[in-house]
Amino acid sequence: MTGQLQSNEDFYAVIPAGGMGTRLWPVSTSEKPKFLQSILNNNESLLQSTWERLKSLVPVERILIVTGLAYKDEVLQQIPDLLPSNLILEPSPRDSGAAIGLAAAVIHKRNPNAIIGSFHADHVIRGLSSFTLAVTQSVISAEAGYLSVIGIHPTRAATGFGYIKTAGPEPKIREGVGFSVERFVEKPDLDTARSYLQSGEYFWNAGIFIAKTELILEALKKNSPDLYQSLLELAEVFGTDTCESDFERIWQSVERIAFEYPVAIPLAEEGKLVVIPGHFFWEDVGDFAAIHRMFTGGNSKALATIGDRDAIIAQDSSGLVIRRSDRIIAVTGVSQIVVVDTPDALLVTSLPNVQGVKQIVAELDKREYNPLNTN
Amino acid sequence: MTGQLQSNEDFYAVIPAGGMGTRLWPVSTSEKPKFLQSILNNNESLLQSTWERLKSLVPVERILIVTGLAYKDEVLQQIPDLLPSNLILEPSPRDSGAAIGLAAAVIHKRNPNAIIGSFHADHVIRGLSSFTLAVTQSVISAEAGYLSVIGIHPTRAATGFGYIKTAGPEPKIREGVGFSVERFVEKPDLDTARSYLQSGEYFWNAGIFIAKTELILEALKKNSPDLYQSLLELAEVFGTDTCESDFERIWQSVERIAFEYPVAIPLAEEGKLVVIPGHFFWEDVGDFAAIHRMFTGGNSKALATIGDRDAIIAQDSSGLVIRRSDRIIAVTGVSQIVVVDTPDALLVTSLPNVQGVKQIVAELDKREYNPLNTN
Repeated sequence: MTGQLQSNEDFYAVIPAGGMGTRLWPVSTSEKPKFLQSILNNNESLLQSTWERLKSLVPVERILIVTGLAYKDEVLQQIPDLLPSNLILEPSPRDSGAAIGLAAAVIHKRNPNAIIGSFHADHVIRGLSSFTLAVTQSVISAEAGYLSVIGIHPTRAATGFGYIKTAGPEPKIREGVGFSVERFVEKPDLDTARSYLQSGEYFWNAGIFIAKTELILEALKKNSPDLYQSLLELAEVFGTDTCESDFERIWQSVERIAFEYPVAIPLAEEGKLVVIPGHFFWEDVGDFAAIHRMFTGGNSKALATIGDRDAIIAQDSSGLVIRRSDRIIAVTGVSQIVVVDTPDALLVTSLPNVQGVKQIVAELDKREYNPLNTN
Repeated sequence: MTGQLQSNEDFYAVIPAGGMGTRLWPVSTSEKPKFLQSILNNNESLLQSTWERLKSLVPVERILIVTGLAYKDEVLQQIPDLLPSNLILEPSPRDSGAAIGLAAAVIHKRNPNAIIGSFHADHVIRGLSSFTLAVTQSVISAEAGYLSVIGIHPTRAATGFGYIKTAGPEPKIREGVGFSVERFVEKPDLDTARSYLQSGEYFWNAGIFIAKTELILEALKKNSPDLYQSLLELAEVFGTDTCESDFERIWQSVERIAFEYPVAIPLAEEGKLVVIPGHFFWEDVGDFAAIHRMFTGGNSKALATIGDRDAIIAQDSSGLVIRRSDRIIAVTGVSQIVVVDTPDALLVTSLPNVQGVKQIVAELDKREYNPLNTN
């Protein structure tokens, strides 16, 4: 199957690399956000893992990265085989509508028959062959004129993810190989998440979209004509000598909107969205509880430690200790604790309260620190 | 009253400065133990506070410090008006029997009519006039031939202190101004501590002993003749050119024993010990729960922070945060937490589990770090 995609000259992969990872502060900072970090301590950043995964499906000539101008040097250093002409630099963040839309416009100019797949730079995926299968199926549906979204089979009543609801318990199978989608659902509360899990009609939305550039651009033209116009202008100047200053000028008027609103949701209403079930391990690693879950298999009584084990002394404790400093860390008599130690900041919270990190970052902001800029 | 003691040429103050403060790691380390630290963030070490307090009672010519050879430079730097002839340096720690006994022997050689008061270097005392009153009363009892110990009126069922039991609910008043003592009591459990508090017959043992040097040396001679012999030899060579090497040699055979065993307990049995009630605030600041108590008045739902408040962000949390590093500390959603952040080590524990710090230090020791030597 890998070969099938590799030789499909119309298929391009896009990596929007922009999430700030606020809830992973102080590991994630605005200077070096989550996607540039090796969160799982395997000496490979999440971006690098994403890149390697996609390289097994698509030749590097057809993999593009969309990221902030501020991350240019770090991205080029981490991904030495990225073609400079495949690096799209945004003057400032404008959400996924602009990022994926701009990539679609740039690629469409190169190949009007292109199909693009958009893959988050900062998610964790395990199970390459299942991932490849789902992408290959998605490309088939995309060729048949659909917007494909990969849905992850839920394994627990997660409240931190968006969901995709298929049309009934026995959803129609579209011409391609996907189920028809009834609607997108925002992050639910725990009871709602439990009912989703039981119903069998819901998938986690992994944010992986695959479609013809033509379909995406048409949806943008129809539902967000101003954004569409800006994207065409940007694609026109991309790669020219005056690209950076032209981008700076045009960017002022680029709308900040998530890809779902002008593209995925309207296409769902038109019956042009299908969900392709993905049976691989997927985690958006959005907060420290997710990291704890990944390391302990969800055992709330276990202690996970990331960093030099010899410098971490733990007794009668559970939770997560991340050591990124060069200090001794001692933890004793604390349950479900989260300790994140970096050279510039220390965070102490508890597994049930990891969402509070957002407020911490907001508070730092108020104090006129650059909150994420402490690393 | 202050004048009364100042002009009493027989009264000397001794500060044994030796406690390691293991349960205050990583603030307290073997390199810079508790007594050299400004635990309460007032830019004055506990030793300096003790020194200033005693200076208001006794001229510096009659205040001696007994400490480890390793702390010589730091002590001289912190206490510039300490006379070099009043600094007794122990080659290694040998507990309070040797420390107070040696000071008694050295002072007795200078003045055979001397009365000494021994005051811990690392306790917190507030209420100078009440303290002065208790010391003055103790000196009167000491002049009458008693060993005086200052007893603190208990204000809660503390399990972390030793107690002194007076002889019955209406104890006899000795010739001086103290109550007769029935016995010393080791640290009790909570139920026992509660019964002590209710009975009204118990005082906290603040470890402040006041007596004629003659009485102390006689008790040592009788109950610990080998220690007594070593102390006489040490006093003989103290201040000579060969003092350091002579100390090194004689020190090998010096017994490690607490002052209570050869002196206070036998004198209690002979009816020669009196307790003088002290009505000042006293705290031995033995662990982080004690520090939290001092800062919050014992309100377990309060958060106490020590260090630059601007660099500590706390939300929905209670407990104690000590910041001695130059980093941002963020704490969210944790109850009764203890966070101690130093440049070399980080401790995270909870108020009910602060005793666990001892095991942490023991574990560090096992790993062949010098546990207290990380500052």
